[in-house]
Parts: sequence; C-alpha cells; structure tokens
Amino acid sequence: MNPLVRFFKVKLYTALFLLVLMLVIGVLGFRVISDYSWIDALYMTVITITTVGYGEVQPLDANAKLFTIFLILSSVVVLGYAITVITEYILSKNNFEEQKQR
Amino acid sequence: MNPLVRFFKVKLYTALFLLVLMLVIGVLGFRVISDYSWIDALYMTVITITTVGYGEVQPLDANAKLFTIFLILSSVVVLGYAITVITEYILSKNNFEEQKQR
Amino acid sequence: MNPLVRFFKVKLYTALFLLVLMLVIGVLGFRVISDYSWIDALYMTVITITTVGYGEVQPLDANAKLFTIFLILSSVVVLGYAITVITEYILSKNNFEEQKQR
Amino acid sequence: MNPLVRFFKVKLYTALFLLVLMLVIGVLGFRVISDYSWIDALYMTVITITTVGYGEVQPLDANAKLFTIFLILSSVVVLGYAITVITEYILSKNNFEEQKQR
Ligand SMILES: [K+]
Ligand SMILES: [K+]
Repeated sequence: MNPLVRFFKVKLYTALFLLVLMLVIGVLGFRVISDYSWIDALYMTVITITTVGYGEVQPLDANAKLFTIFLILSSVVVLGYAITVITEYILSKNNFEEQKQR
Repeated sequence: MNPLVRFFKVKLYTALFLLVLMLVIGVLGFRVISDYSWIDALYMTVITITTVGYGEVQPLDANAKLFTIFLILSSVVVLGYAITVITEYILSKNNFEEQKQR
Repeated sequence: MNPLVRFFKVKLYTALFLLVLMLVIGVLGFRVISDYSWIDALYMTVITITTVGYGEVQPLDANAKLFTIFLILSSVVVLGYAITVITEYILSKNNFEEQKQR
Repeated sequence: MNPLVRFFKVKLYTALFLLVLMLVIGVLGFRVISDYSWIDALYMTVITITTVGYGEVQPLDANAKLFTIFLILSSVVVLGYAITVITEYILSKNNFEEQKQR
C-alpha cells in the first residue's frame, strides 16, 4: 500500500476512534451524572456532539452542566481534528492527480 | 462535455439525491413512528438535518428517539460526503485555472 | 486593482448581500406571519440562520412552519455559496503566493 | 523557526485569543444582563458559540436578546476567521510538502 495513504488511514482511524470515544464518554456521563436511561443518554449525546441540540432530555444540575460543557468543547476539538485530516487527505490526493496529469 | 466535469456532476447529483432521500426517509419516519402531520414531519426533518434543532415538535418515545439518532448520524455522513465532493470540485477547477495561467 | 481580486470582491459582496437579504426576509416574514415584535423577529431569524436554534420564540402555526422551512433551506444554500466563494478566494491567493516563491 | 510557521502561529493565537474573548464577553454579559449564575452564564455562552443551542437557560428579555444576537454574530465572524486561518495553514503546509516531493 502507498505509504501516504497508510499515513492518512492511521490519522482517519484516530479521528474516528476519538469520535466513538466522545460518544462513549457522553453516554456514560449522562447515565452516571444525570441518571438518564441508556436511550436518553445516547440521544442526548448524539444531539450534543452533532450540535442539533433540541434541548436537554431532562433538566441538568450544575454538575451535569459542567460535564456537558466539557463534552461540547472536547467534541469541537475532535471534530476540528477530523475535518483537518479529511481536508489534508483530499489535498494530497488532489496533488497526486495533478502531478499525474502533467 | 469535459470528462472531469461530467465525473463531478455524477458525484454532485449522487450527494443531492442522498440528501433528498434523507428528507423523504425523515418525513415518512416521523409520520409513521410519531404520527406527526405532513407539515410537522417535514418541519422536524428539516430542523434535524440542518442541525437548527429548535426542539422536538411533539415529545418522542424510545423508538422515535432511536429513529432520530439514525436520521442525524446518516445525515452527518451524507452532508460530509456532499462537502467533500464540492471541495474536490473547487480544487480541480482551481488546478485547471492554475495550469491555464502558466 | 488586480482583476482576480476584483472578481472575488464582486462574488463576496454578492454572498454578503444575499445573507443580509435572508436576514431582512426572515425579520419581515416572522413579523407578518407570526406577529413577532421587531426584536423577536430579528432574534428568531438570527438563531435560525446561524442554526443556534434555541427554540421558537412563540409557537408557530402551519404557515409559519412552512415559511421557516423555506428560510432554513434558502439560508443553507446562501451559506454554502458564501463558504464556496471564500474557499475559492483562499485557494487563488494561495496559488498566487506559491508562484511568487518559485 | 520557519518565518511562514511563525506568521501562522501569530494568526492562530489571534483566532484562539478572540474565541476566548467571546467566551469571557458571553459569561460576563449573561451575568450582568440576565443575572445568570456563573455556571449558567458559562453553559449559555458555550451552547451559544458552538450553536448547540438547547434553549435559553432562563427566559431572556429584550436587552438580553439583543446581547445574544450580538454574541452570535460576533462568534460567527470569529469562527469564520479561525477556520480561514486553519485552512490557509493546511494549504501552505501542503504546498511545502508538494515542493519537497518534486
Ligand atoms: K442547534
Ligand atoms: K434547541
């Protein structure tokens, strides 16, 4: 396999792993801190990470708000990393095709 | 027609088709699972896919929450694909103009 | 002035004009269709176009929901156009600097 | 240090500084204008700037709505600047690697 492609695969899998990790942290967090059911905890985590944000499934106390702030800010960083990796991959694929055309 | 442009047109129409498909799946899903009216189902689907997310038009039970999670995650993948295709198109058009200038 | 820069300035001003137009359409629409106050209509329009989406300032009837769907979908297209124009501008500036370095 | 890298570091730190400034302005604003607690003011600011937007923590009067409109629009501009700087950095790094490969 092309070493450049392998290099990006590692970075893409890292980004994907971090996104799944955020999902797991979110679900466990809302389970433990706010006593949400499994489905509510997953629902709350998905609408938070994707910024859909319909509203809190059940009211959050101060601790749950601090956890949610941490989850949102971490997700923004992880999503930013994922988008950067995908952009770099598109650019390097584009370079490769540009050089083939010459 | 330029084969490169035709190639991107196919990809752009695929992305557009998938977005319309998500819209149709969303409307039918909220109709069937949550008994929303046609307008409410369309409204809920549009505010979900675009991540505006004012709030659930009517409360969702566990099944409707699972459907909404599926709709949100699928939409993120389809939107990501659409943005990737548009970025590749802008880049290859940019390459083309760059080479003309030399 | 560089003709390339002038070309992008026209496109950027078009995008900015369309964004302000969406803002005006949103404010007038929520004023007329939902009898919102000026501040509520502006607030609702801003949280809609930016997809913050706290929630409807006051409940929307079927007509107001259809108008909101139209406002959201138009804004997505206008924002997509704005982002495309800015990306093209960054790329052509980047080409220009790349060629100077050679 | 490479002057190009130093140039982008200055821009990236500026973007980061402006984001933190928006956070501080948001927290102080919701404290003073809407009498939010520190945690609520931070929570409201984070869900606003990241466009998660679950909903207003407590109802906002006309002045608080105007402040929120200002916070949202400023954040969009700052986020747009941050994304532009990161894109320019990825592109110039990509140019550099492309030229090494020749
Ligand atoms: K939202
Ligand atoms: K909301």
